[in-house]
Parts: sequence; structure tokens; C-alpha cells
Amino acid sequence: MPRLTLAIDAMGGDFGPCVTVPAAMQALASNSQLHLLLVGDPDNISSLLAKADSALLARLQIIAAESVIASDAKPSQAIRQSRGSSMRIALELVKEGKAQACVSAGNTGALMGLAKLLLKPLDGIERPALMTVLPNQQQGKTVILDLGANVDSDSAMLVQFAIMGAVMAEEVLSVPRPRVALLNIGQEETKGLSSIRDAAAILRELPEINYIGYLEGNDLLTGETDVLVCDGFVGNVTLKTMEGVVRMFLSLLKSQGEGKKRAWWMTLLGRVLKKRLAKRFGHLNPDQYNGACLLGLRGSVIKSHGGANQRAFTAAIEQAEQAVRRQVPERIAARLQAVLPKSD
Amino acid sequence: MPRLTLAIDAMGGDFGPCVTVPAAMQALASNSQLHLLLVGDPDNISSLLAKADSALLARLQIIAAESVIASDAKPSQAIRQSRGSSMRIALELVKEGKAQACVSAGNTGALMGLAKLLLKPLDGIERPALMTVLPNQQQGKTVILDLGANVDSDSAMLVQFAIMGAVMAEEVLSVPRPRVALLNIGQEETKGLSSIRDAAAILRELPEINYIGYLEGNDLLTGETDVLVCDGFVGNVTLKTMEGVVRMFLSLLKSQGEGKKRAWWMTLLGRVLKKRLAKRFGHLNPDQYNGACLLGLRGSVIKSHGGANQRAFTAAIEQAEQAVRRQVPERIAARLQAVLPKSD
Repeated sequence: MPRLTLAIDAMGGDFGPCVTVPAAMQALASNSQLHLLLVGDPDNISSLLAKADSALLARLQIIAAESVIASDAKPSQAIRQSRGSSMRIALELVKEGKAQACVSAGNTGALMGLAKLLLKPLDGIERPALMTVLPNQQQGKTVILDLGANVDSDSAMLVQFAIMGAVMAEEVLSVPRPRVALLNIGQEETKGLSSIRDAAAILRELPEINYIGYLEGNDLLTGETDVLVCDGFVGNVTLKTMEGVVRMFLSLLKSQGEGKKRAWWMTLLGRVLKKRLAKRFGHLNPDQYNGACLLGLRGSVIKSHGGANQRAFTAAIEQAEQAVRRQVPERIAARLQAVLPKSD
Repeated sequence: MPRLTLAIDAMGGDFGPCVTVPAAMQALASNSQLHLLLVGDPDNISSLLAKADSALLARLQIIAAESVIASDAKPSQAIRQSRGSSMRIALELVKEGKAQACVSAGNTGALMGLAKLLLKPLDGIERPALMTVLPNQQQGKTVILDLGANVDSDSAMLVQFAIMGAVMAEEVLSVPRPRVALLNIGQEETKGLSSIRDAAAILRELPEINYIGYLEGNDLLTGETDVLVCDGFVGNVTLKTMEGVVRMFLSLLKSQGEGKKRAWWMTLLGRVLKKRLAKRFGHLNPDQYNGACLLGLRGSVIKSHGGANQRAFTAAIEQAEQAVRRQVPERIAARLQAVLPKSD
């Protein structure tokens, strides 16, 4: 495998370098071809590297940044004042070709705006979208987008998300003629918002898209579709709802039977069974698939959860590695022109 | 307890009388004060009662209806052609005082429209909302609305939902000064749709409402709030997503370890543990709390899931019993005037 360089916004997210630096070391340890540019406050980052393995440090470089974009900053304002911030510098490294992709757990709106400004959308794409790949019940995977890049999406945007999602499923997940569905509140044609109904009418007429109709929230994990399209507000709430329920179940499983007096052999057997359950449900743990990919740009940008822990941020770095290896932006660009509605 | 009469739209839902009739018998068996008016096709209903206990049949009356509103009918059209339908007759029985509440698993839009037309909204309420009470992780309950009665909700509507939800939590769940939150995609004030930000600004100024800010999808079951407010589209997708994940977990738990060869004692112990897990998670089973209450009307209307099974439809009937016993519409009406913004 050829050398791979990623830029990491080390200051983004709720925990900043406390999470991003150990996660970076973990990612370096598991991929010997990986080089990382950690962008942020050099003192802060260095202090966390004091005890690090020197062999790993050889593949790590600190890039100084003076400021951090706050998670609660208004995106438009944050973007105007972004010069010198860790997020912007990380994106500039991608723009200048010094890194092949960028990972940030910072302000979503600012990341979206800055990425669009610096890396530019692909021809024919109005608005990039945040996409993730969820494991489903049929041992397959489902591409879901938009997850919050566009709070308000009209029908034309939904159609573009559908096209990008289909290309993603076909080219990256190797699903031939992927099924594409719109998330709605019922399966009947008359249901839902007019933007969704209009998008359905357009998708039905696109021969390049295998549009299968509406799906509802309960189909998120059933594997009924390969691509599920929704506006950014609904996608964000839906994904977080799912994660909240999964986390609750995993924590209930973990605490099951604790604090109760039991025969030792029962406790032991209980543990064995719980381990098996955890293994069975583990792939649904949100930490495992943290990292949403900003699709539709001339470069790869991965948005991590703001509240990501070390394990979750490492998963986001690995997503960036995959996006680069599988040439996601290049493949989308190449397929997009054939699939995009001719009227564009 | 005084006698209680409910009107059941026996023809509504995906399975019609096959589910509603046995559920009605189950509800009659568990409450000796309950009387039911089953509205629908007499032949169809009677054939399902052939082997029923005559003591229960004494508290059941069949009311003939000529037609059924299809689940996929366009609400406006369905309402125009609703005369003689099982749903409309069930609502008319409430309007005429012959039943104290109505339960239907039929077309949501039609039920909402017909209920508003026949039972009329309370003074000060523009649009009724679908509400349900979810069990949360802190052994408490969370009122969530709207779940799909209003696909597009502006800020004034969100404020009215918040007020109705708060009254519901205070008067019916006995929560003093219930916390009220808006569902959004971030906790910062600048986040989300303008309708939500505007509703937040109004709620912050209402002294009668204990408004605590925005919550996200992952807080649905955490018990961070007593009332969670959102528009009908988002509420519907969110609830269905939650239900889909919960059902998946329950079915995985059930099938765990099946088909594997094991020592008999391990199989046995596995079963014991699974039973305990099922007990622990059972209260989250969507069938247990099926039935959303249409709030804001001069009468009680319970909407069951279209796909409800017998157990779930019985739960919806029990919800209607509770709504009547706790005088939900009367209490909301009484409190509403004091709480509603004076500008209305």
C-alpha cells in the first residue's frame, strides 16, 4: 500500500487533544503506511506525546494553529474568523495536496462551509452532504445521507443526495444497481412533505437510479434499501435517536444482573452469555462506525462526532483512510456526470 | 369505577377485524366496567365472535358501517367521502355522547381531519397533535408530541404542542412543573430550523412553562426532560426509528444462541438469563405502549399503529380507558386558558 497522509484537526470536538492525540497514535500503530499531520496548539499536543513510541512519532508532524473554532459558534461568523484555526489549516493542507483527507470533530456547520469554500463542490453538486454507512440486520450495509450538513433540503438537493449515495453504494460498497429509498412517514405516494414527494417524482424518472420508494424510520436497520435519503435535520435526529437507543441497550446489557447476589457458577455463566450478546450486538455500537463523510467535494473530509471518545475518533481516522484508498471523490465525480439529470 | 363506553373502529388498520375483534374481547375480559361499540361490517365482526364468551358479549355491541377508509387514501378525499365509514361513525358516537372515547388504527390524516371536524379543537388550539408517553431510562415517563398529525409545524404550533404536553405531564403523569424541551440537532441556540428557534424564543418568555432548551435524538429515552416537542414529520420518523431499533434488539435477544449445539444445562441457563433480559427490556417493547392520543380536541381519540397486533391494539384500548378516567380533554381545557400566551 502506498503512503497515506491525513490532516487531523487536533483541537476540534468536546475533548480536543485529550481524545484526538491518543486516537492518532492508535491509528498510526495499526497502519504502518499512515502519516498524520496534527493541527493545533503545539504545546498542548506535545505534552500528550511525551511518552509516545518514537517509531510512531516519526510518522507524525505537528502543524501549529493559533485558534480553535468553538463548537457552539455560529457557522457564518466562525467561517469569517477562521483564518489560523486548526480546522481551516487542516482543510488547507488537503487543498494544497499536503494531505489526502482531513478529519475533524469540530463545529459541523463551519466544517461544511469551510470545506465547500476551500475544496469546492464537484460539478453539478449544489450542496455537499454528510453520509455514513450503517450496518444492517441482513449483514449488509446501508448508506444514509444527509446527516446534518443541510438543515433544510429541497427536492433538487434530495435528488443529488440520492445520486451521490447510489454512486457511493455501487462504487465503494460494491452493490450492483443499489436500491435507493426516501425516508418518509408512510409508504403511500401522498405521504409526507412536498419536497420529498417532488424528489420521488424526479427519481422515478431517472433510469440510472434504482428508486424503490419511501421507507419509514423503522426500516433504518432492516436492510430494505442500500441507500436511504433524507434532509439533514431529519437524518441527524434519526441517527442520534438510533444511537441513543443502541447505547441504552448496550449499557443495560452490561449492567444486567449486577449488584444481585447469586451463586458463583451462575455469575460466571451469566458473564459468558453477556460476552456473547455483546459480540452479537457489538457491530451496532455507534463508536464502531463514527465518522460521517462529506460527499460532493473535490477532496475527502470526515466529520467525527463532537463527543467522540478515543475509540470512536480512531474509527473516524480509519474512515478517512478508506475514503482515500477507495478514491471516493474521484469515483463520485466520474460517475456523477452520467447520472445527473440532463436539465442541470 | 363507573361504566365506561368506548367506540372502536373495527375496520381500521392493516388487519381490520382479525386484530381489533380479539383485542376488544381481551380488553373486555380485563375490565369488567368496560363496554365496547364495535363499528364495522356486522357479518365480518360476528363471524369472529362465534366462539366468544357470552358474559363478555353482553358488554359488546356491533354498530353497522357500510364502508372503510383505506389506509393509503388521500386524507382530504377520504374525509369528503367518509359518510357511513367505520371511522366516522366511531367518532360520531363520541360526538353524540354515546361513547366516551374512540380508538382507530386507520388512516392517520383522515382520523385527524375527521376528529377535528366532528369533535372540534379546544379554545386556543389551532391544530391537535398526536402524543404518546414513552418509558425512559430513569424509570420515569416522557411525553412526546407531535407524532405525525401535523407534517409541517410552524413556531406557534410548536408552542401549543409544548403547552399541551406540559399540561399532560402535570395533570395526568403528576409531574410537578414538568420540564419541556424542543427536539433539535444541537443544544446551541443557533442550531436547527427557524421554526424551532422562534418557538424557543416564545417558550423562554412563558413563565408557566418550565422550558429547559434543546435536546437531541439521543436524549429520547434518557429522561432528561418530561416533555419533548417536535414537528409531526420528525416525531413520526424518530418514534419509528426508536421502535425499529428496539424491535431488532428484542428479536436478536430472542434468537440469541438458537440453532447451536450446547450442553442441556447451558441451554437451560441461557433461557433463564434470556427471560430476565426480556423482563428488563420488556417495558420498551413498542407493543406495550401502542396508541397515540390526539390532544387538543373536545373528546378523546386514540390512534393505534396501522400494523398493530392483538396485544398492541389492546394496549391502545387501555390508553383510551385511561384518557377517559383521567379526563384528559377536560383537564387540558381547564389549564389551557391560564397557560396560553395572552396574545392569542
